[in-house]
Amino acid sequence: MPEVERSGSGAVVTVRPLRTEDLEAWRPLWRGYTSFYRADLGDELSEDTFGRLCEGGDLIGLVAVEDGGGLVGIAHLVMHASTWSTASSCYLNDLYVDPESRGGAAARALFDAVYAEARSRGADRVYWHTQQFNGAARSLYDTVGQLTSFIVYERELD
Amino acid sequence: MPEVERSGSGAVVTVRPLRTEDLEAWRPLWRGYTSFYRADLGDELSEDTFGRLCEGGDLIGLVAVEDGGGLVGIAHLVMHASTWSTASSCYLNDLYVDPESRGGAAARALFDAVYAEARSRGADRVYWHTQQFNGAARSLYDTVGQLTSFIVYERELD
Amino acid sequence: MPEVERSGSGAVVTVRPLRTEDLEAWRPLWRGYTSFYRADLGDELSEDTFGRLCEGGDLIGLVAVEDGGGLVGIAHLVMHASTWSTASSCYLNDLYVDPESRGGAAARALFDAVYAEARSRGADRVYWHTQQFNGAARSLYDTVGQLTSFIVYERELD
Amino acid sequence: MPEVERSGSGAVVTVRPLRTEDLEAWRPLWRGYTSFYRADLGDELSEDTFGRLCEGGDLIGLVAVEDGGGLVGIAHLVMHASTWSTASSCYLNDLYVDPESRGGAAARALFDAVYAEARSRGADRVYWHTQQFNGAARSLYDTVGQLTSFIVYERELD
Repeated sequence: MPEVERSGSGAVVTVRPLRTEDLEAWRPLWRGYTSFYRADLGDELSEDTFGRLCEGGDLIGLVAVEDGGGLVGIAHLVMHASTWSTASSCYLNDLYVDPESRGGAAARALFDAVYAEARSRGADRVYWHTQQFNGAARSLYDTVGQLTSFIVYERELD
Repeated sequence: MPEVERSGSGAVVTVRPLRTEDLEAWRPLWRGYTSFYRADLGDELSEDTFGRLCEGGDLIGLVAVEDGGGLVGIAHLVMHASTWSTASSCYLNDLYVDPESRGGAAARALFDAVYAEARSRGADRVYWHTQQFNGAARSLYDTVGQLTSFIVYERELD
Repeated sequence: MPEVERSGSGAVVTVRPLRTEDLEAWRPLWRGYTSFYRADLGDELSEDTFGRLCEGGDLIGLVAVEDGGGLVGIAHLVMHASTWSTASSCYLNDLYVDPESRGGAAARALFDAVYAEARSRGADRVYWHTQQFNGAARSLYDTVGQLTSFIVYERELD
Repeated sequence: MPEVERSGSGAVVTVRPLRTEDLEAWRPLWRGYTSFYRADLGDELSEDTFGRLCEGGDLIGLVAVEDGGGLVGIAHLVMHASTWSTASSCYLNDLYVDPESRGGAAARALFDAVYAEARSRGADRVYWHTQQFNGAARSLYDTVGQLTSFIVYERELD
């Protein structure tokens, strides 16, 4: 993917694909993200996910990097087929920016890169889920995406 | 997949995989479904989708068949990876029951079959989207699935 | 309770307490109501509930009766304590009007009677739950009650 | 009730029934809770409620106690009848954890104890209300209960 660079109030942020050597820097962002949902996915699953995100298959990992080189945000994509299009859909499974880097360029740079990556993989849309009550996230999403009328139902299988 | 049979007030309904020879019977159900969303996907895309649903890849087509052999409902699944699990997720992309066959066993038989099929493909969850205001559908979904707090954002790509 | 009488476009409707001899007339209304929620509570539970509604304890049954004497609606109340008041709360557990009698005086007569009954039992409030998407019911509720910002979470116990 | 103990990141938390001697420690938690809803119920009503919570009738008080013995959370239950079951329903009327003790084990320990207590009193379900926009609470509730499609209407009686 072409790198996406964006500067806002604060540091310049670059977004690039996740790499195997990012594991230690990726881990606290993943933990911060999952603990927001009060989830602990465990080390084994987390490392399995990390591995698949670096592999270049249907899962795609992107990271936002600040000037100095530190990881400040992550975006994880899932490419999948759709019955409504011959093109793929791109599901933005996870998005997280370190609390200290919020309000700057990181989240928008990640969205720019997500859209570029999805396009380059042949998707005609990107979609994501957010909790209806997550005002902080939604105020951003309203500026980079479109709210739909859809809600999510689920059934866990034994 | 094992066939799922279910009887309610009315005819016995069987759910089985979609087959190539179902095209003519599938078409009006697909058209009824897409026109509910005021969409017309066109013949070419519809036939491409139908073909992929019969192929046995990531798209899976299931049909509800009534006693006499007529198709009364369809369910289309998309299998995809997830960052939260090593198991797949199963997205129920489309579900439709012919208006004349509603209130009987068809919808529940389809859900039973969807869950069985998803499980047999290694998924640990099935999820689907519905318009927040679609009361008729939600009153069913409230009995076969779990409402979540999630809503859907989207970005169409040029 | 004092009987509540109300006339609208159509028949005069009277609301009175449920009585043991109403069982056969109450049953189809109860069935119509529960099947709206796609539930079948079975004969045994239904008759147990009916019995408790006639007993004069914490459960209270009210019925709307049309001119000729036929039952056209039901309201079931549950009285319970509250930590926010020394007075009781009255939960309107079930409300149903026969589809053929809707748009007339029955529903409002039932609400009038519910409020009168709750007051006479020492309650300082009546509250009820409705599906967020039940537009037909909510358009009535907006005129006889107050929408709150509260939603309902639940946990079924094994 | 059996005591429920739970440890998280931080102190071990035990949940036990509210006792008469807890009044002084309970009061600031009750005040913190009611002031969240911008309510001031007054001393008289508060003490009446406290008294009923200790009595062992339809109101049940539970408290979360940290290692050293301090009260850090409260849960107040109301048992009541239902028309949909011969079993009771348990309404979780109030739940509060001291802000300084949030993010630890207290809230989950309280839910564990609420479910155990409700079960031991013969309830087949626990339910509660929360403001639709209360994200902090809902992100917890999404992990310990099920969101429903129900909203709450109310009528205050003179």
